[in-house]
Amino acid sequence: MRIAQVSPLYESVPPLLYGGTERIVSYLTEELVREGHEVTLFASGDSKTSAELVPVCERSLRLDQDCIDPLAHHFIQVEKILKYQNDFDIIHSHTDYFGFSLGRRTNRPVVSTLHGRLDFNEHQLIFNEFREIPLISISDAQRTPLPGANWLATVYHGLPTTLYSLNKQGGDYLVYIGRISPEKRVDSAIEIAIRSEIQLKIAAKIDRVDRTYFEQKIRPLMRHSLIEYLGEISDEEKNELLGSALAFLHPVDWPEPFGLAMIEAMAC
Amino acid sequence: MRIAQVSPLYESVPPLLYGGTERIVSYLTEELVREGHEVTLFASGDSKTSAELVPVCERSLRLDQDCIDPLAHHFIQVEKILKYQNDFDIIHSHTDYFGFSLGRRTNRPVVSTLHGRLDFNEHQLIFNEFREIPLISISDAQRTPLPGANWLATVYHGLPTTLYSLNKQGGDYLVYIGRISPEKRVDSAIEIAIRSEIQLKIAAKIDRVDRTYFEQKIRPLMRHSLIEYLGEISDEEKNELLGSALAFLHPVDWPEPFGLAMIEAMAC
Repeated sequence: MRIAQVSPLYESVPPLLYGGTERIVSYLTEELVREGHEVTLFASGDSKTSAELVPVCERSLRLDQDCIDPLAHHFIQVEKILKYQNDFDIIHSHTDYFGFSLGRRTNRPVVSTLHGRLDFNEHQLIFNEFREIPLISISDAQRTPLPGANWLATVYHGLPTTLYSLNKQGGDYLVYIGRISPEKRVDSAIEIAIRSEIQLKIAAKIDRVDRTYFEQKIRPLMRHSLIEYLGEISDEEKNELLGSALAFLHPVDWPEPFGLAMIEAMAC
Repeated sequence: MRIAQVSPLYESVPPLLYGGTERIVSYLTEELVREGHEVTLFASGDSKTSAELVPVCERSLRLDQDCIDPLAHHFIQVEKILKYQNDFDIIHSHTDYFGFSLGRRTNRPVVSTLHGRLDFNEHQLIFNEFREIPLISISDAQRTPLPGANWLATVYHGLPTTLYSLNKQGGDYLVYIGRISPEKRVDSAIEIAIRSEIQLKIAAKIDRVDRTYFEQKIRPLMRHSLIEYLGEISDEEKNELLGSALAFLHPVDWPEPFGLAMIEAMAC
């Protein structure tokens, strides 16, 4: 089949550091190519893929200091896909509303995988508007707030089995991987570590909107001698960090739609 | 003529507090109605207009604590306009890229007034993509970075002449009105006030992305006894504040595309 994969542009495909959605788009794209499909990937120009890459912007947007308005690039992406639309049997979007709007402008089938939580007020309204759009959920639980949407299937995230490996010597520290924001409860992870008297290593990104939360609530907690903050890390560093840990902590306080870091920890 | 006015949804039309774009959409809409046109306004549900209002969301989004994803409402807005498109002779968009994308989905003429600066990297790319879209500038200077875009006309902002009035007793303080962010240089306004030994009253909004800048750079400067921070204010309060001031300070450090606050100050 001739398949278009449409990735968000915030991270490269695969991402160098943080980036769950772009990581999954990469695994999926590479596997489709391996199975003999003709795949075109619409992603940032610093992506690496064995599919044909249509670069939408020069570099991935989140860490690009020159990028002021990431939205503009996603609007351009839709127009680029429409230019090539007749080359595809199916268009697979990972860009939420942009994919929905695209679905109304093309006669090619567009299917959207939703990567986030769906329980905001806005979700009721937008899925009510775009009720014909075919959707893939990443867990059955993700569908709960929107039982009436046009769900086609649940496709769980997978990982290449060779990616992470266990250090059989074991380790003596706890690890937290992901994002620092109120709903992810890194404060709980820190409390668990301190009360257990075990070292905690934190590898996580901080979004601009969470910067004040980080400075006010989390940085003071990190001053404890058991807590070490590593910033964002690469896949290679993640393998070492996860594979040698005593345990992975994931004390989230929100309806996590999948939790990629959990299967990464289990893949070691 | 049957005219659709398409407003951003961040503020009501007119806005209760801060909101230059929505303020202009309101003046324009009311004047078009007064001149006998049949005007439909696509705006937040808390807008007040003599045109026909199509409410896109219940309340304006910026100060709505329940609004997590304002983008969703703007996608819904486009679909609502498309449902009614045949009722209009012309669609006038104030929503940037959403209007451009809409322009490619309808056979009705869509004209876009651009309310912001146009010198980001992204602007070259997006105006190159949407080069056929007819555009209105709010000053000739605004066009400078994009000389090749499809400019139809410059329409300067206007104000109802009855809105603001001068307090002829005069006043003894300086005033700063607008937004607190690095390019607006409220720090310069504070320095001017302190060096002139004249009181400065600041009425301004602070966006979430500027919160850290405010806490780190501006709040410490506001501790000076000559500086008074009022938060955001209504039109009525603005009239009193501007009309009784000694002078208005606007020491911006960016290519201000128009500067609505400047004509508000001059209207007193």
